[in-house]
Amino acid sequence: MTYCVAMRLAEGLVFASDSRTNAGFDQISTFRKMHTFRQAGERELVLLSAGNLATSQSVISLLERRAGTDAPNVLGTSSMFETAELVGQTIREVIQRDNPDGKISNVDFSCSLILGGQIQGEQPRLFNIYPEGNFIEATEETPFFQIGESKYGKPILDRVVSYSTPLDRAYQCALISFDSTMKSNLSVGMPLDVAIYRRDNLQPCFTERVDESSPYFHDLRQQWHEGLRGLFNQLTPPALGPG
Amino acid sequence: MTYCVAMRLAEGLVFASDSRTNAGFDQISTFRKMHTFRQAGERELVLLSAGNLATSQSVISLLERRAGTDAPNVLGTSSMFETAELVGQTIREVIQRDNPDGKISNVDFSCSLILGGQIQGEQPRLFNIYPEGNFIEATEETPFFQIGESKYGKPILDRVVSYSTPLDRAYQCALISFDSTMKSNLSVGMPLDVAIYRRDNLQPCFTERVDESSPYFHDLRQQWHEGLRGLFNQLTPPALGPG
Repeated sequence: MTYCVAMRLAEGLVFASDSRTNAGFDQISTFRKMHTFRQAGERELVLLSAGNLATSQSVISLLERRAGTDAPNVLGTSSMFETAELVGQTIREVIQRDNPDGKISNVDFSCSLILGGQIQGEQPRLFNIYPEGNFIEATEETPFFQIGESKYGKPILDRVVSYSTPLDRAYQCALISFDSTMKSNLSVGMPLDVAIYRRDNLQPCFTERVDESSPYFHDLRQQWHEGLRGLFNQLTPPALGPG
Repeated sequence: MTYCVAMRLAEGLVFASDSRTNAGFDQISTFRKMHTFRQAGERELVLLSAGNLATSQSVISLLERRAGTDAPNVLGTSSMFETAELVGQTIREVIQRDNPDGKISNVDFSCSLILGGQIQGEQPRLFNIYPEGNFIEATEETPFFQIGESKYGKPILDRVVSYSTPLDRAYQCALISFDSTMKSNLSVGMPLDVAIYRRDNLQPCFTERVDESSPYFHDLRQQWHEGLRGLFNQLTPPALGPG
């Protein structure tokens, strides 16, 4: 599996993804699930992928190969909306290539993508692109999207993240969301890729690769774990009647 | 969906279940998912159910109808292990009745059960019974089982619950686990049924129905939510480099 989360906030965009890929428990590898497309001063795009690795790699490869050519491509679109349409079409193209008759198979060819970024003249935007190629856009009321193994890490996002959350706090929350997920599910694993885009910057995101040796993440995990247990123990437990 | 959790701890057993059943979003009802079978001084059994409601209701009905008769029944077994076998057989019997040829269908006939309790002469025991009728038993290393919509509420259990957790703290943790689940997933809903069994008591569990008006749960949710946000804000956020 995979876990990716992205947020569209007043100050900009936050992206985070794990890097564990597994085809069965005995076939585990590390693959980057975060990809960027950029033209400094003009556009900065980030794609996160989950699902079938063959499909998502092909989608990324096709988007990269076509970038800057005469074909419709992610560096030639005039809006984020158009970019999301293009990415959705590319998903459909790859799935059509690999499973042309749409046969029901033991293999799930589907992949989900999150696309975020900014193109000059627009606000930063964030899209959740489904395996069918259609998509939804984040709003102020719903400022984050998750793909992959998303349930373990959702409660803390629901509690903490709103459109007005500052970028550094949003990054902190994403790390805690990953910590909860990795504690409960083996199929999501380090290292993590993080990208932070500051609104209207139109320059490369701040990026970071977080692994076991990252002192900040190490301390955060420990403080969060101990803090949670402390908070838990400090609340009054329920009274148990007879029985 | 459904969410149920049960724990086997040094002091005894804790059970909790929600009561929301849905067949589509426009068909939501409240059904109790916790059922008890008892003979005071001799045995106390609790069953939690998730999955197809027709299947789980039939399983419970058959177990109830046969209880105390000459047929193999949950009041006549000589061990919790034998009781788990009997419940597993009853699941197979009902699924065989409703889908005799094992046809692949749009309907998922399966149900999962958690069985816990104590029979005189044995320790308290806890079983997770799969739709196929086979089962696993909780150990000191793995003191809790969840069925249904289990992922949202798993991180807090992983962090807090161990075999030595006192019953009242375990109950508190179960409530927080439900709170996280209900905040993130509409298909799990109040009221909650809780049962606490104290080891070697062999008398009816302490039971409670927790709903929106329960002052303890109301305060716990609020204190936990505010405490979590306070803890979050008190930790140092990560430094963001240029970008």
